[in-house]
Amino acid sequence: MPQMFQDFLSQRTLSMRRNQIREILKVVSQPGMISLAGGIPAPETFPIENLYRINEAVLDRYGAAALQYDLTEGFTPFREALASYLKLKAINVSADEILVFNGSQNVLDTLGKILITPGDIIALETPSYLGAISAFSAYEPNYVSIATDDEGIQPDALAETLDRQQVKFIYLVTTFQNPTGRTLSPARRRQVAEIVKERGALVIEDDPYSDLRYRGEAVAPFYTYAPENTVYLSTLSKVFAPGLRLGFCVAPPLIHEWLYTAKQGADLHSNTYAQALASEYICSGAIYGQVPKIIELYRPRQEAMLAAMEAHFPGSYSWTEPDGGMFIWVEGPAGVDAEALYWKAVEEKVAFVPGKFFYINPEDGLPTMRLNFTRADEAGIRTAIAALGRVMRAFPKA
Amino acid sequence: MPQMFQDFLSQRTLSMRRNQIREILKVVSQPGMISLAGGIPAPETFPIENLYRINEAVLDRYGAAALQYDLTEGFTPFREALASYLKLKAINVSADEILVFNGSQNVLDTLGKILITPGDIIALETPSYLGAISAFSAYEPNYVSIATDDEGIQPDALAETLDRQQVKFIYLVTTFQNPTGRTLSPARRRQVAEIVKERGALVIEDDPYSDLRYRGEAVAPFYTYAPENTVYLSTLSKVFAPGLRLGFCVAPPLIHEWLYTAKQGADLHSNTYAQALASEYICSGAIYGQVPKIIELYRPRQEAMLAAMEAHFPGSYSWTEPDGGMFIWVEGPAGVDAEALYWKAVEEKVAFVPGKFFYINPEDGLPTMRLNFTRADEAGIRTAIAALGRVMRAFPKA
Repeated sequence: MPQMFQDFLSQRTLSMRRNQIREILKVVSQPGMISLAGGIPAPETFPIENLYRINEAVLDRYGAAALQYDLTEGFTPFREALASYLKLKAINVSADEILVFNGSQNVLDTLGKILITPGDIIALETPSYLGAISAFSAYEPNYVSIATDDEGIQPDALAETLDRQQVKFIYLVTTFQNPTGRTLSPARRRQVAEIVKERGALVIEDDPYSDLRYRGEAVAPFYTYAPENTVYLSTLSKVFAPGLRLGFCVAPPLIHEWLYTAKQGADLHSNTYAQALASEYICSGAIYGQVPKIIELYRPRQEAMLAAMEAHFPGSYSWTEPDGGMFIWVEGPAGVDAEALYWKAVEEKVAFVPGKFFYINPEDGLPTMRLNFTRADEAGIRTAIAALGRVMRAFPKA
Repeated sequence: MPQMFQDFLSQRTLSMRRNQIREILKVVSQPGMISLAGGIPAPETFPIENLYRINEAVLDRYGAAALQYDLTEGFTPFREALASYLKLKAINVSADEILVFNGSQNVLDTLGKILITPGDIIALETPSYLGAISAFSAYEPNYVSIATDDEGIQPDALAETLDRQQVKFIYLVTTFQNPTGRTLSPARRRQVAEIVKERGALVIEDDPYSDLRYRGEAVAPFYTYAPENTVYLSTLSKVFAPGLRLGFCVAPPLIHEWLYTAKQGADLHSNTYAQALASEYICSGAIYGQVPKIIELYRPRQEAMLAAMEAHFPGSYSWTEPDGGMFIWVEGPAGVDAEALYWKAVEEKVAFVPGKFFYINPEDGLPTMRLNFTRADEAGIRTAIAALGRVMRAFPKA
């Protein structure tokens, strides 16, 4: 029997799909489970002690203004703080060029809203961030996959795709990519910038992880190579607290203007109080003391995971060794179905995300998996990887 | 010269329009201006002193959980608190039946997203809340206006409209309506409920103001008359703090399910910390001490405005005398253009909102205006109304 109001759903609703990672996370809450799934910061990274002080400072300094309706573009002291924070990434913009959203997911959704007419083609690196696909899909695009390798998206493949068809935009997680952990190399950034500038194309650069660098030198954002052709977006979820839902972006003027208008219609503005907390967190310098602590927590976890993989995974499996971020990407031999392996692993109290969910054509990613190393501690990671190694060895190929 | 990326905008972007009230508010910030525009709570109503304690209580009680990623449907203690709060309005639902959004504007946007296919017809009372029109318009509906009188929407006109054409939903602000201040009477609620139940129609009941009652008896929400045919939405913006962007809704099961999915793709979930603050504000009972204080602040302001209007406005003007809310609706004689009057009033340092912006056909509302009485104090209100009376008397009809 159809449910009441079945006929009332919009055309676009039929193209929405639930974020399957979040569905998978439901198993993760079972007692005793070690989760290498999700992309969730360790709660120890939140500056809770500091927040008692930051709350007081915000109420003392801003009073009612921190609780009142505010500008659609974002709380001015927060945008000013973000402008100073972005300068450290070589992004030189004024507060007026920054728009604040409810997490970076909300930037992606609003970009989809203002840019995607049903049937438009979006270019994605292969594999690509599932949350972005969820956000865009509500606006009924078609996708085209661009080949990648260890240096990120392949410029030749991108150029060929752009020359073959009209592409609305190219979506890239440029540094410590979700799900692979890969970073688009500086040489590649230059090449991709040339390609999009020549063609008047638009890149959406999603950069949530670049502060989480455990070794090696910082790479300037893609935005700095092609600012007129790039929407740069990031978040404080990995360096402050994801529950505050603070994302932001810098965009070419016309896109900035329509993002503003769309946001006004969608929710008027983002949480003023959270923005005030974050501006205090940045302006007081607390962020610059906290990020090294986060790195010192995550680096040994990643090292523990890589060492345990080396010790326990079969020789037929390969994986990335990222310089930062939250994920390691594993590729099993052809014939392995990582989702079947997932359910075996769950019986052993280990959860991860089967990689196929990050592909437009899930069949292309059957033997892949994404492992997160920020949530579990080193001992948990060693236990989980050893168990996963046993499951892999016991697991029949197709 | 067209701006870069002009051709990249989606079809729906072309149907978006800026919220003109917020554009008008820009004039309001001029020094010395008394604003009867906007729908902004008085900052004195925010429980700032209490918030020092509430912040500490939240960090003590929930710690990292108040800062972490959380459920798409909303922070569980907050939804439990809302369930107890809604019981006082005779809405008996469990926490699981409540969804939390970034302000009620965000509920309206998400309803538009899941329900409106371009060209669908939305029924609006005349005049209607501009913010809702902004939210829905991004999804390219057509609108049909339903006649209203002092008791709210006219049942016969509604029935006739529903019988004449397929209507996706009827949007109503049922109590102390924005912009008129009118309340749909209990008798009308019964009649409208019968009409929509007979026809399997869907009502979106927006109820931000019902707690702000200055006299008379509470009216049960329309939802209680037709729960299976109603999406009920409200906000803490008028009884806690709008800057926290906390809206919520109760919806029929299928609509609940798709609102959840759409929200997951749009921003994962609403601000956990703000939800924790609000749950503490409700569970501690602070809200039930604060609302009477808000009423005691606003009631004399409304009384001052009504008395000053009686003393200063020309006899050719009429207005509503609502039992609560934030607005009084004024109708001038035919031939008056309230927008022209607005610019004269601004010269006299008084701002309001010309009523035509609340009409699908602006010509229908030319001589109307919306006056807010919650932001200015009594002295300011008396000064503003006296000035407005002078402008009205000096103002030529068309």
